[in-house]
Amino acid sequence: MTFEKTLKDIAKITGGKILGDESAVIKRISGIEDAKRGDISFVANERYFKHLPSTEASAVIVPGKVGAIKGKNLLVVDDPYLAIASILRELEGATHPLPGVHPKSEIHPSAVLGRDVSIQAYAVLEEGVKIGDRVIIYPGVYIGKNAEIGDSAVIYSNVSIREGVIIGKRAIIHCNSVIGSDGFGYAKEGDVYRKIPQIGIVRIGDDVEIGACVTIDRATFGETLVEKGTKIDNLVQIAHNVKIGGNSLIVAQVGISGSTSIGNRVTLAGQVGIAGHIAIADDCVIGAKSGVSNDIKTNGAYTGYPATPHNEWLKTQGIISRLPQIKDKLAEIEKRLGELEKIQRE
Amino acid sequence: MTFEKTLKDIAKITGGKILGDESAVIKRISGIEDAKRGDISFVANERYFKHLPSTEASAVIVPGKVGAIKGKNLLVVDDPYLAIASILRELEGATHPLPGVHPKSEIHPSAVLGRDVSIQAYAVLEEGVKIGDRVIIYPGVYIGKNAEIGDSAVIYSNVSIREGVIIGKRAIIHCNSVIGSDGFGYAKEGDVYRKIPQIGIVRIGDDVEIGACVTIDRATFGETLVEKGTKIDNLVQIAHNVKIGGNSLIVAQVGISGSTSIGNRVTLAGQVGIAGHIAIADDCVIGAKSGVSNDIKTNGAYTGYPATPHNEWLKTQGIISRLPQIKDKLAEIEKRLGELEKIQRE
Amino acid sequence: MTFEKTLKDIAKITGGKILGDESAVIKRISGIEDAKRGDISFVANERYFKHLPSTEASAVIVPGKVGAIKGKNLLVVDDPYLAIASILRELEGATHPLPGVHPKSEIHPSAVLGRDVSIQAYAVLEEGVKIGDRVIIYPGVYIGKNAEIGDSAVIYSNVSIREGVIIGKRAIIHCNSVIGSDGFGYAKEGDVYRKIPQIGIVRIGDDVEIGACVTIDRATFGETLVEKGTKIDNLVQIAHNVKIGGNSLIVAQVGISGSTSIGNRVTLAGQVGIAGHIAIADDCVIGAKSGVSNDIKTNGAYTGYPATPHNEWLKTQGIISRLPQIKDKLAEIEKRLGELEKIQRE
Repeated sequence: MTFEKTLKDIAKITGGKILGDESAVIKRISGIEDAKRGDISFVANERYFKHLPSTEASAVIVPGKVGAIKGKNLLVVDDPYLAIASILRELEGATHPLPGVHPKSEIHPSAVLGRDVSIQAYAVLEEGVKIGDRVIIYPGVYIGKNAEIGDSAVIYSNVSIREGVIIGKRAIIHCNSVIGSDGFGYAKEGDVYRKIPQIGIVRIGDDVEIGACVTIDRATFGETLVEKGTKIDNLVQIAHNVKIGGNSLIVAQVGISGSTSIGNRVTLAGQVGIAGHIAIADDCVIGAKSGVSNDIKTNGAYTGYPATPHNEWLKTQGIISRLPQIKDKLAEIEKRLGELEKIQRE
Repeated sequence: MTFEKTLKDIAKITGGKILGDESAVIKRISGIEDAKRGDISFVANERYFKHLPSTEASAVIVPGKVGAIKGKNLLVVDDPYLAIASILRELEGATHPLPGVHPKSEIHPSAVLGRDVSIQAYAVLEEGVKIGDRVIIYPGVYIGKNAEIGDSAVIYSNVSIREGVIIGKRAIIHCNSVIGSDGFGYAKEGDVYRKIPQIGIVRIGDDVEIGACVTIDRATFGETLVEKGTKIDNLVQIAHNVKIGGNSLIVAQVGISGSTSIGNRVTLAGQVGIAGHIAIADDCVIGAKSGVSNDIKTNGAYTGYPATPHNEWLKTQGIISRLPQIKDKLAEIEKRLGELEKIQRE
Repeated sequence: MTFEKTLKDIAKITGGKILGDESAVIKRISGIEDAKRGDISFVANERYFKHLPSTEASAVIVPGKVGAIKGKNLLVVDDPYLAIASILRELEGATHPLPGVHPKSEIHPSAVLGRDVSIQAYAVLEEGVKIGDRVIIYPGVYIGKNAEIGDSAVIYSNVSIREGVIIGKRAIIHCNSVIGSDGFGYAKEGDVYRKIPQIGIVRIGDDVEIGACVTIDRATFGETLVEKGTKIDNLVQIAHNVKIGGNSLIVAQVGISGSTSIGNRVTLAGQVGIAGHIAIADDCVIGAKSGVSNDIKTNGAYTGYPATPHNEWLKTQGIISRLPQIKDKLAEIEKRLGELEKIQRE
């Protein structure tokens, strides 16, 4: 992606106030540590402020708490992340394929395609599939019977979407993910596990983004649900009949067990595990690697396994790290006690 | 899936005793919380019994300990899970593709196909592949040289099966899984890792089910083995030369390191990690997120990292959660001891 | 793989000294526990030495510390792993497909192919792709616009490589992995997450091996980097803008968060999680299941969550396992103290 804009042009996209030379020429966007002349960069996190005085960037987007710096061109905005997102959306070169149905794709005659769809090579659309307007289906995608893909959704290469799954508008599903695989459900008969057929579906809301190699199982009956605006990172496991509310963040390698319900605006950090048949309230933040095995009924930050309020966890972790000293102190006390007892007996 | 049966028809499939109206009309199966008139539902887990008095379901399958409920039609069975599995198997609409070899598949002339196989679009079968009777190969599946797929197996879309792998009868492999990738084996020469070629195979027993995005590595030499009836959930990693016994359950995101042996009827709960070159006895249950780094020689429940008998782990966890109080108690005792010592010195 | 060699022939490949019959005939390579007459096996790890007296193998490769064993043919080498790797490389039958471009592949006219490449069925190469000499592309692989694959690289079936990604020489990417998916980057606007377009790339160095179902995200801008000689196991997550040095080992199911930097010759054991925006020094070994949330500035072994020097972690774990006794001891001390206090008061 290359372009040529002045800092003033950029400020028209982002809003904000320029401190320095508004005619500075901007040709690329770079990270603050790699930025060269001609680049615009940004700092949002305080740990990167130290790079400001020495950066070669022609301009840097900064939050309000950064003041003018002599010789640097700054663009002061409320939220540097939002500003950079706006610039990227405005300037990003089109990389998706153009509309059209590739002759080397396999589309059942009963499938219904919206306007301006792009169906690429070796994609397979089974009987009764419905594809909305402007949908982009990359190569090697499989879409099972009667599945529906909402307008403007993007399905990347080698994704598998099983029968009956419903994907919302503007949803993005990254490469090699699987939506609608069978839930892990068996009835035990003696030593043998008998498969419980999984006849429900998965419903993915509008504006949901799903990372690469994610697995979301179909419901036993009814539906597994991810609501509007939730973002799911790579290699996440979502079991049958799970419900996830809207505008939540599910970070990489999280696993959510069957029939569990996650609220709205929840963050599950990386490698968290959630037991089955429980509920997590709205607005919770669960720390990385935590294991949650009971309902969480009040919003807040929780960490550990079993997960406890984050502040208690920090306190307990602090004591655990001092356990060797505590053990020594206990031995010392026992010795002093023994001496007192000895004196007493004399 | 829709049908129209009476409760009496259903009882013929499941066995069990009807309490209520045997002529109630059943058209769908639903979860107890979502069930409407015309639905049959079930409760197995006590935590769902509370929904019984208010459900709109036309009938509910219940275990023996639930008695008659006025105005409700109950079907009392030994195991509601087995009952619902029977109904689902009996009534499930056929969703698999019909037998036939799709013209847009790529099958080496030396491959041997059984009777009534279904090979779908863009599947690739390499030289020497053997496919049993009634096998279903979904689109985009890759099967490497000389691999063998047993009768009535189902291989879902975009699965990769590498050369020489052997899959048992009635096995099910869900979308995008990889069977037979190279083991992670290197010999170190100075700072450089030299690849040890991995020339063994993977052997998957009859009636094994493997979830989506699972990876099972081929043996360095010899075979990686999963025995009859074991069920493997999504995103599980099984390294080279691992042996897993029969009728075991491996839950999502478990990782098993190289050359380890897992017994029969073992359950590994979600996100468990097992070190290499160890053995887990038959009939063990390893709790979620546990890390096992030594042999487990006696059957039973184990949890934690390092894994210990589950009851000990619970006891230790209970003490850990009270560490702040224990620390305060120690400080109090030291103070009281100091006062006694002071009196003693006086 | 079958062949027929004498032990003397084998010794010419590996170097080392024969103890026993140099004319012993070797037809296969096997693990020590499974070896039969006609097999050569090896032992490197002391825990397998016990199998030496009873093995039926016609020869065994052993390290220097193993002496002559009556009736056994031994081949004594410095490093049995290196020796077996040499034999396997020498004798491995060719399994890769022959050079050639399959008619059922889809290659953009602008793509540039090196000499002796093998492009298999249903592979897709987009506009501007560059493929080096002797590269092997298995079926169902997707390679996005302007991506580059170095000489002699092997890309296994159903891998997805997104636009602009650069893969080094002799790199190996196992089935169903995803290189260059979008980083997990959003700017929050009220309750809503706005996608930050991810316009950087991924650069994979020479001689890197990447397992199955691995996900490596493209940089927001700039590049996500894995340097020369690093080996990555299955189901690993590498987030946007991560840098991994050379000759490191990343074991299965590890997750590395965004913008983190991992040194050279680092080992991350299975299921480790690394927080974002931190740095791990060269030559560190992080124990299985550890969570690292701060910089590690000194080489060494670290374990736990939060990760601490391995020896401290062992010490703390030892105390944790004795917490029930420590609690009892504390109760005993309090009782004895109470008795002393009572005497004092009298």
